[in-house]
Amino acid sequence: IVDSVSACTNYPDPHSRALITALACHEGVDARNIVCGNGAADLIYRMVHALRPKRALVLAPTFSEYECALAEVGCAVKHYPLQEAKHFAVGLDIVDCIDDVDMVMLCNPNNPTGAVLDSSILPRIQRRATEVGATLVVDECFMDFVDDADSHTIKPLVNGGRDIIILKAFTKIYAMAGIRLGYALVGHAETAQKIKNSGQPWPISVIAEQCGIAALTEAQYIEETKQLIKTERAHMTHRLAQLGFTVFPSATNFMLCKTDIPKLRERLLPYDILIRECHGFTGLEEGFFRIAIKSAADNGRLLAAMEEIVKQRE
Amino acid sequence: IVDSVSACTNYPDPHSRALITALACHEGVDARNIVCGNGAADLIYRMVHALRPKRALVLAPTFSEYECALAEVGCAVKHYPLQEAKHFAVGLDIVDCIDDVDMVMLCNPNNPTGAVLDSSILPRIQRRATEVGATLVVDECFMDFVDDADSHTIKPLVNGGRDIIILKAFTKIYAMAGIRLGYALVGHAETAQKIKNSGQPWPISVIAEQCGIAALTEAQYIEETKQLIKTERAHMTHRLAQLGFTVFPSATNFMLCKTDIPKLRERLLPYDILIRECHGFTGLEEGFFRIAIKSAADNGRLLAAMEEIVKQRE
Repeated sequence: IVDSVSACTNYPDPHSRALITALACHEGVDARNIVCGNGAADLIYRMVHALRPKRALVLAPTFSEYECALAEVGCAVKHYPLQEAKHFAVGLDIVDCIDDVDMVMLCNPNNPTGAVLDSSILPRIQRRATEVGATLVVDECFMDFVDDADSHTIKPLVNGGRDIIILKAFTKIYAMAGIRLGYALVGHAETAQKIKNSGQPWPISVIAEQCGIAALTEAQYIEETKQLIKTERAHMTHRLAQLGFTVFPSATNFMLCKTDIPKLRERLLPYDILIRECHGFTGLEEGFFRIAIKSAADNGRLLAAMEEIVKQRE
Repeated sequence: IVDSVSACTNYPDPHSRALITALACHEGVDARNIVCGNGAADLIYRMVHALRPKRALVLAPTFSEYECALAEVGCAVKHYPLQEAKHFAVGLDIVDCIDDVDMVMLCNPNNPTGAVLDSSILPRIQRRATEVGATLVVDECFMDFVDDADSHTIKPLVNGGRDIIILKAFTKIYAMAGIRLGYALVGHAETAQKIKNSGQPWPISVIAEQCGIAALTEAQYIEETKQLIKTERAHMTHRLAQLGFTVFPSATNFMLCKTDIPKLRERLLPYDILIRECHGFTGLEEGFFRIAIKSAADNGRLLAAMEEIVKQRE
């Protein structure tokens, strides 16, 4: 960041060539199949504006920005309802829902559930999407935290030239949400070009481009982060369950939980802790909440606060 | 920038509250009438996506992004042709062109001509736009360089609650194009809200917001910049005319010129100078080019190179 301050008097490279070259090497994907955005959220909107789907299949619950973007182009949304009893796992029956749609929006692992897609189902979804001529979009922004991510990502199909779009971000794994930097890996190079041409020519700031290039060299940081999250996730899952919370299995750096304690969010505010209530997500009712897995110290603070609140209640 | 590095691990404030508070004070406009964007270019697209005009009046020549954005929503474009013989000034006859449109897009001073709108015409354009129910958009990104800008800006009408949108950017006057930060002053607060809700929730990076707040305190820098540009513009106008170039009167920090020297752009490349050829703009043919007014040293380099090229030709 500091090294790029003086370059900020000029416009950024509208083609983000240096970053895309670094990403092509890092991801093993051709540069022509990569589009950068002002965060993955920017790419959701640019992709939808570029492709203008008419009817899309979307998970419920999932990240709400997909539907907000689809609404901007008047796209009808069909939901695939995930079930609490099945831990919000996507079932093979999703294949039957892919009939009259031109876009399938998946999030893997899914937000806010943390559930990773069974890797045997994904190829069947992809084949069915191809059959009906639908673009398959998989938001893999949280994939970097997943064990054995290689067997879960659909990246190999990007190189296979399929009609697939993977959304990724520097936001989560590199902890740089405030910089705003995401990218898409796109199976069809001409679709990548369409997405790039949708919206303004300079979405990536000079600083964001340089941060992305620098971040990609931090291989050890990634390994340490994955290990930290894995250890902390196991610990928190165990302790929250002991405290009486329902904890849904998560493959990533947040967890969906459920409680019957009323106003848990408000009760945590005096501890300077803010949890994400999830009843605003389609398919989740009152009592569901999402927490981030952070450092051991921060997680300890959350657990201590939760413990006090649970005890006060008894 | 350096002070905000550690805050970049978190998401930016989606409402850019600190920046909007500072802008409200700086511009004398209510915070509810301000929307921030990832550069003014981002706001052009978000505004067009939010308002979805069906038929717009656009100057020719002008900044090309207006038409690119309007094309994304299928808006028909009607041109008001500016004439070289009139130094590309907007005439009163523009009022008659405002009949079957729902958006009027002006750029004041205009890019790439540098011409400022006669301040007696603007109120008549605004009244006519109101009569036909069209939103008046004025891109004032280059207004900060104009002498007596107060008599040229339509900002007073924003506070009057008219259906007006002014586009502004930190890009030019603060020389921070690489940061990506622009804003809109919107006469109707509900229109401001619509533009804000169009597209992703986090367009402004943590660094951009902090840069904006810091920039607004630099009042003396603005005065010095305006004075520098004014002095240098007069000098360059004089010298380029002496060298045989046609120079169109500019009110801002760039100048439109015309030459019969073929391939002037290519001839300047060996001097490490890049000028903007303008025959890509609707209404400008081969031979038009735009140059930036920079420091005295940079301008001197350009003039020296031009002089050599002119001499080689004689």
